[in-house]
Amino acid sequence: MSEGSKLWGGRFTGANDPVMEKFNASIGFDRRMWEADIKGSQAYVRALGKVGLVTKDEMEEIYEGLGKVGIEWQNGTFQIQPSDEDIHTANERRLKELIGPAAGKLHTGRSRNDQCATDMRIWLREALRTLRGYLLDFIHVFLERAKRETDIIMPGYTHLQRAQPIRWSHWLLSHACALQRDAQRLDEMAVRVNELPLGSGALAGNPFNVDRQFLAKELGFGAVSLNSLDATSGRDFVVEFLFWASLTATHLSKWAEDLIIYSSKEFSFISLSDAYSTGSSLMPQKKNPDSLELIRGKAGRVFGHCSGFMMTLKGLPSTYNKDLQEDKEGMFDAYDTMTGVLLVATGVLSTLEVNKVAAKAALSPDMLATDIAYYLVRKGIPFREAHGMSGAAVHLAETKKCQLSDLTLADLQTISPKFTADVEKLWNYENSVEQYTAAGGTSGASVMHQIQTLDEWLAHMRNKSHTMKSRLEMDVTLN
Amino acid sequence: MSEGSKLWGGRFTGANDPVMEKFNASIGFDRRMWEADIKGSQAYVRALGKVGLVTKDEMEEIYEGLGKVGIEWQNGTFQIQPSDEDIHTANERRLKELIGPAAGKLHTGRSRNDQCATDMRIWLREALRTLRGYLLDFIHVFLERAKRETDIIMPGYTHLQRAQPIRWSHWLLSHACALQRDAQRLDEMAVRVNELPLGSGALAGNPFNVDRQFLAKELGFGAVSLNSLDATSGRDFVVEFLFWASLTATHLSKWAEDLIIYSSKEFSFISLSDAYSTGSSLMPQKKNPDSLELIRGKAGRVFGHCSGFMMTLKGLPSTYNKDLQEDKEGMFDAYDTMTGVLLVATGVLSTLEVNKVAAKAALSPDMLATDIAYYLVRKGIPFREAHGMSGAAVHLAETKKCQLSDLTLADLQTISPKFTADVEKLWNYENSVEQYTAAGGTSGASVMHQIQTLDEWLAHMRNKSHTMKSRLEMDVTLN
Amino acid sequence: MSEGSKLWGGRFTGANDPVMEKFNASIGFDRRMWEADIKGSQAYVRALGKVGLVTKDEMEEIYEGLGKVGIEWQNGTFQIQPSDEDIHTANERRLKELIGPAAGKLHTGRSRNDQCATDMRIWLREALRTLRGYLLDFIHVFLERAKRETDIIMPGYTHLQRAQPIRWSHWLLSHACALQRDAQRLDEMAVRVNELPLGSGALAGNPFNVDRQFLAKELGFGAVSLNSLDATSGRDFVVEFLFWASLTATHLSKWAEDLIIYSSKEFSFISLSDAYSTGSSLMPQKKNPDSLELIRGKAGRVFGHCSGFMMTLKGLPSTYNKDLQEDKEGMFDAYDTMTGVLLVATGVLSTLEVNKVAAKAALSPDMLATDIAYYLVRKGIPFREAHGMSGAAVHLAETKKCQLSDLTLADLQTISPKFTADVEKLWNYENSVEQYTAAGGTSGASVMHQIQTLDEWLAHMRNKSHTMKSRLEMDVTLN
Amino acid sequence: MSEGSKLWGGRFTGANDPVMEKFNASIGFDRRMWEADIKGSQAYVRALGKVGLVTKDEMEEIYEGLGKVGIEWQNGTFQIQPSDEDIHTANERRLKELIGPAAGKLHTGRSRNDQCATDMRIWLREALRTLRGYLLDFIHVFLERAKRETDIIMPGYTHLQRAQPIRWSHWLLSHACALQRDAQRLDEMAVRVNELPLGSGALAGNPFNVDRQFLAKELGFGAVSLNSLDATSGRDFVVEFLFWASLTATHLSKWAEDLIIYSSKEFSFISLSDAYSTGSSLMPQKKNPDSLELIRGKAGRVFGHCSGFMMTLKGLPSTYNKDLQEDKEGMFDAYDTMTGVLLVATGVLSTLEVNKVAAKAALSPDMLATDIAYYLVRKGIPFREAHGMSGAAVHLAETKKCQLSDLTLADLQTISPKFTADVEKLWNYENSVEQYTAAGGTSGASVMHQIQTLDEWLAHMRNKSHTMKSRLEMDVTLN
Repeated sequence: MSEGSKLWGGRFTGANDPVMEKFNASIGFDRRMWEADIKGSQAYVRALGKVGLVTKDEMEEIYEGLGKVGIEWQNGTFQIQPSDEDIHTANERRLKELIGPAAGKLHTGRSRNDQCATDMRIWLREALRTLRGYLLDFIHVFLERAKRETDIIMPGYTHLQRAQPIRWSHWLLSHACALQRDAQRLDEMAVRVNELPLGSGALAGNPFNVDRQFLAKELGFGAVSLNSLDATSGRDFVVEFLFWASLTATHLSKWAEDLIIYSSKEFSFISLSDAYSTGSSLMPQKKNPDSLELIRGKAGRVFGHCSGFMMTLKGLPSTYNKDLQEDKEGMFDAYDTMTGVLLVATGVLSTLEVNKVAAKAALSPDMLATDIAYYLVRKGIPFREAHGMSGAAVHLAETKKCQLSDLTLADLQTISPKFTADVEKLWNYENSVEQYTAAGGTSGASVMHQIQTLDEWLAHMRNKSHTMKSRLEMDVTLN
Repeated sequence: MSEGSKLWGGRFTGANDPVMEKFNASIGFDRRMWEADIKGSQAYVRALGKVGLVTKDEMEEIYEGLGKVGIEWQNGTFQIQPSDEDIHTANERRLKELIGPAAGKLHTGRSRNDQCATDMRIWLREALRTLRGYLLDFIHVFLERAKRETDIIMPGYTHLQRAQPIRWSHWLLSHACALQRDAQRLDEMAVRVNELPLGSGALAGNPFNVDRQFLAKELGFGAVSLNSLDATSGRDFVVEFLFWASLTATHLSKWAEDLIIYSSKEFSFISLSDAYSTGSSLMPQKKNPDSLELIRGKAGRVFGHCSGFMMTLKGLPSTYNKDLQEDKEGMFDAYDTMTGVLLVATGVLSTLEVNKVAAKAALSPDMLATDIAYYLVRKGIPFREAHGMSGAAVHLAETKKCQLSDLTLADLQTISPKFTADVEKLWNYENSVEQYTAAGGTSGASVMHQIQTLDEWLAHMRNKSHTMKSRLEMDVTLN
Repeated sequence: MSEGSKLWGGRFTGANDPVMEKFNASIGFDRRMWEADIKGSQAYVRALGKVGLVTKDEMEEIYEGLGKVGIEWQNGTFQIQPSDEDIHTANERRLKELIGPAAGKLHTGRSRNDQCATDMRIWLREALRTLRGYLLDFIHVFLERAKRETDIIMPGYTHLQRAQPIRWSHWLLSHACALQRDAQRLDEMAVRVNELPLGSGALAGNPFNVDRQFLAKELGFGAVSLNSLDATSGRDFVVEFLFWASLTATHLSKWAEDLIIYSSKEFSFISLSDAYSTGSSLMPQKKNPDSLELIRGKAGRVFGHCSGFMMTLKGLPSTYNKDLQEDKEGMFDAYDTMTGVLLVATGVLSTLEVNKVAAKAALSPDMLATDIAYYLVRKGIPFREAHGMSGAAVHLAETKKCQLSDLTLADLQTISPKFTADVEKLWNYENSVEQYTAAGGTSGASVMHQIQTLDEWLAHMRNKSHTMKSRLEMDVTLN
Repeated sequence: MSEGSKLWGGRFTGANDPVMEKFNASIGFDRRMWEADIKGSQAYVRALGKVGLVTKDEMEEIYEGLGKVGIEWQNGTFQIQPSDEDIHTANERRLKELIGPAAGKLHTGRSRNDQCATDMRIWLREALRTLRGYLLDFIHVFLERAKRETDIIMPGYTHLQRAQPIRWSHWLLSHACALQRDAQRLDEMAVRVNELPLGSGALAGNPFNVDRQFLAKELGFGAVSLNSLDATSGRDFVVEFLFWASLTATHLSKWAEDLIIYSSKEFSFISLSDAYSTGSSLMPQKKNPDSLELIRGKAGRVFGHCSGFMMTLKGLPSTYNKDLQEDKEGMFDAYDTMTGVLLVATGVLSTLEVNKVAAKAALSPDMLATDIAYYLVRKGIPFREAHGMSGAAVHLAETKKCQLSDLTLADLQTISPKFTADVEKLWNYENSVEQYTAAGGTSGASVMHQIQTLDEWLAHMRNKSHTMKSRLEMDVTLN
């Protein structure tokens, strides 16, 4: 430091700055990966043993020492020291205290760069497994309700205006479809998460020819990473997860928005269970859909992590740069948030009550205007003309200040002679929805087909699930 | 309108507002989907024919009329009218002018909601095919250069500090790996894009039981959408594309950032071809890497589309809302931008020259400090101890104001008696990189293995490519 | 280019790449700043004259030549040439054609870096003036309606649940308050926009001691920039504008969301003028609030520009980098979008009709539950206790399946003896709103005070407005 | 709950769901506002006293009870109970325990909606005061270094290519200018933050005519909010703060990017103090600029909060919705992050050393090419022609494989006869920078003027600072 600079600030005279140390340390959050770190090191020391860099005895000593460190974490007795800047340092420091100098062999040919990337991928893999389960459970509730409540008919809206009658189950399934894609995306992403970086060193690779296939097998990875520069600094897998969470949260926000509107006094189609509503500190009559509002609001939070980390990555040169330390907190929080969101959403959907009567009461004859056009189309009138006639009927009803269904046959015949007595059958909402028999439509048969398709898919997904690994699982529940 | 309101503004007295009409119209940009719209309508009229809603003659009349409309677009003779608010309206209006009232049957049971979603998916599917080709071509250039320039050794950096020697080809491949994942994600996404919404109506489905499997086959879709509410308003496929483009652009930004730094006078590892550099209006000596800076900057632009559209979607209720009209401009611009970025990047990489001599000159003996530690590890010293000794050697060289490689054996033996005459072999960068034989490392063999793996993958990907459809292709090149 | 590289692609053998040229050129969009560019050059040549770098004759020749170029733009006769990569090049090229070699003196000591930054600031300054006018006009409509419709009482909602009765005018003013802050922010930002970069050269400054204060005065700038490195590459002013637009658009989105809900059949509080609604291609009965949905959706678009450009800036080194070329398109589109949004919103608000009857009908006695608590508080019961008693009354009414207002005095006295005959006055919504006399509340007097405050502020703002400059104005209306 | 729903999940049978309770509670983070909450309540009870809703004795009892609660927080002895869902509930619950039923009068006419908004504004106001101090201190270091190191000349870069020689102080000041604008924006925003919402109730206002001006004065607010609907749900002030932090962080990222590049081995212009660098777990020779990389990376994190919360807000209807609970965590984290970033950046800048020799050595004669053009301009040659001649000289030097400065007068005269013996003076970097005498340029005098201007501004800003309030301050330091 130049003479002059000393003048600029008392804090900056020594060899370190406590603010910088705090700013630099990650142990406050990366400790959460303690188990992944222990597992990764246990596998690594076995690989070192295979290439003779540690003796069999050393290997066992280190392996078991690591196990003891893990037990301390599990029991909550691990003592973090001021010098433990990250979980990797902390675990190796403790190992050395427990087993002595042999601990110094563990890091041979390894760098925190490949170690950290490995820990993150192990952690995220397990986290995805948990979220996948929650997501499938949530979809299951949609399917169960859809099966049981197929007979409920409600207004379908576009532009928040009443459009055509639809089945409540059809509405339920529309959200299940979006979530089904989320589950599919999760599985695709999980394959990319599950590639092993360990054995890539700081950047150039591992100089002791450790058997990376062996490491991958030990740690349950599906593949080894192809290039060490990419493996140590690539954070696509984090970005992909954050985007996945963000899009899934957006789907939940859409679902929540529908239900918030449906639970307003004016709509009154549903009522939430007390467990998912709250009262007011000022207005005793109120019952607010806080659960749904929180779900809706969290979509912003998760997107914030996605956009923030993408900005951090943008424009960085390749290989490891310390900026990448921003990769973990967003990942952890996105996991916690999605856990909360999915569990609460499942609770809300499992316990809400549909007000069948109110839903039916909200159907009005003008929602059948399209059906008039279809009626005329079936009688041979080109659609554009039929659409115009249907509009004329709407207008006539307005003029006569009556409902569409109150128009007499004579009234209708002033619009087109094609109207005959069978027009009466139109004024029936059940008939209306039953028209939509093409795949994906709102008729009973079509809805049932959708349910079957998703049921089969769900069964297939559940079979694909690997058995949960018991230990790694522990840390990744909501905390 | 109330009496009073007339006072508030002269513009607002009539039945329409020209600003609103402009604000509402999408023909200015959705005309770009003219061909998809024609194809979709041609398939739809055939489906109407199958269920008897049009006669065979009407079907043929409409089909051929649509073909004529398409030719007008292709020839640039289509005249947009003020009333053509979108491409769907424009095409049907023109059809009616060409063939008369039979045109009024085309829209039977269809809505702009399912029509528009179908057009977008056709358009995007073709756009993805084009981008996929550009991406694979770009990866190909990485592989070709990596094969030919394997002998070039350069400093590998972390934190922008010289870290360890690596092969230039290893650096090239690290970027190819990221792009390989982008290609994989593109193919996964393309499957979700390629689902047919047509036959979903406005929201409730199609009431005339049109054969949606037939439609899908006609239009080359892999599947029909499962639920009509989801199909008419789901825009995941747009968000996924925008995110894909955003992450791919971030990879290109990282690559560009490396090269911008490498092309600085201070680094001088590469020089760009004149075609991809520009001069200064003020400083005649300058040669600026504009191409790379534009590529780097475009990552922000594409991300802007992704984040903007996600915000538009967030909090919307389900089914169609007009907010969704924001789905197209970002999609088009992301496609155009990625086309430009990929083509320019391919040009840059194909034509840049590597300054082998400068790259070598930037290697310095202190980059071999890790190798000293490894040398000692190979002699049985635990890594942590060896790392400390290596640090001591670095310190000794600094004290003696010499290079690490200038330390005598006697000097080194003051640090550890394990140093022997063979330490001389350390001072060789070729030897250094050749240590990294484990999978993914920077040794010649490991690099060659990476190339082979990617070569095989690339061949596989190329075989998977479908033949380009000639016509639909036309509109989606850079315009 | 090395021998080998020729093999990599036919397109890359020459000295230029047409895709790169297109990628690099900005004339396609920066032509929009033609007038600012002409004005800036006219001022600059006068400054050159003052320091003797051009003679008086040359100065006049150049000044007038520039005027002629401007007229070509204005008349639409300016011919862009393939070599005109940007507006600066185009104008100088044309000037040279018109006046010959003297044109070569114009760029003396100037760089495209300071020139472009100057043009953008001139353009944006005028654009802000226009948007400011639209914003104040919009606020004016809020105030006018608030004055005339003070007597309309409607439910106030929180959590989309009916909470307490409020005046419609109070709701109107709440949005005007948010827009008032937007206007304030606009004025603050405009001061920062209005700093002159011209005379900063490429980065180091101007070497001919041009009089920058003179330039500032000529061009209507409030100050000269302080540091040439900052002036040539700082783009805060663009980011600030994009953020301003984004927050303002979010306010409009909130307002639109309210009105979309209020215009649903279920609420029916308002109906939009036909000019701002549209029908359905399938459902003749529908009247959709497209205008409001577009306004709501555009908030995402504008935010996309803000976030995209912030990402482009993030991590750039200082001084000019070509990435900055991304600064213009977002700025232009944000301006166009905000113009459309503000004008359409003003139209919507000026012409919508409030359904006073429906608003009143939506008031229900349970919304007076808080008033019961307040009644008891006024009788000396601590609020927490009174709140509990009010809750008991709500519960009692539910048990008796009657409205709160149907509870008899005897009923109420089972809850508290403090209820006396005067409780009857509670069941009156007018009385309820009139309680809120504290500043900012919903009583008539308080609402009137809010209107007066904003009226005075608006008058002050209008006085502050500078006279519009007629010419520069022309280009910045919606195009 | 319907019979059927019980089948859907064991967790959902009771009246509450522990996951929902956790999801809903904010005490985990909003406890940080304990002091603002106490102060706000103390002022409120005094206002209640003024309108007679509490007696003088009650007022004092409540006031002092609140003081005791505050002391518990301060001493770390406050015990949070499971039922304390937020800080407001917690404090009132504890107050009741301490003073009994009189506590039930505190919340009279108040809602958590106005209470929470008030607490946040008090908290943020104090946080801004702290950040303002850090920011001004940081700018001070720039000015001090700029004064002392004015003689250091270095290459100025554009496009990361050497452009023209500049003074190191000029570079320093360019960053100080951006930060100066940040300070200005902070002060503007602080005025908007400092508006009092208390007395707005849940939405409709305060029904007991509490004196809001009195409240504002008690709590140090500059104004009372104008409209209760806006006051209880408006969160502009949070968004503005997050954007301010985001833009400021982007400025710091740009500064960090410059320094990371300058501290690379290849540039070697600066070296960081050990306190702000870290070593490698694998490479003993390395000294990494971790501090700067973290600063650069944090810009993404802060932007993430800004964009996330804007998305949460977008599309919400007006008044309070529970989504708004997302307003606090991002605000707190942005404050903590900016605190760390500003303090570490100040430390880095105070202690780094500039390598004057390396900076000078990086200057090369080709950087004087513009000066050749200026030389010719001064001899009467039009700039465009002079620029061409300068280019010819660059080319000639390249052909002769010599430096520009090695060209003989005879060489130069082959380009233009205007070259005479005085051309020698060009080859001097000091002369080059001294040309830029116009305001904002890099000449010594111009740099000195910039320093003076900023010095005066800084002194003015420091005078404007209010005395820090000691207690509220305590909680808002880095924690």
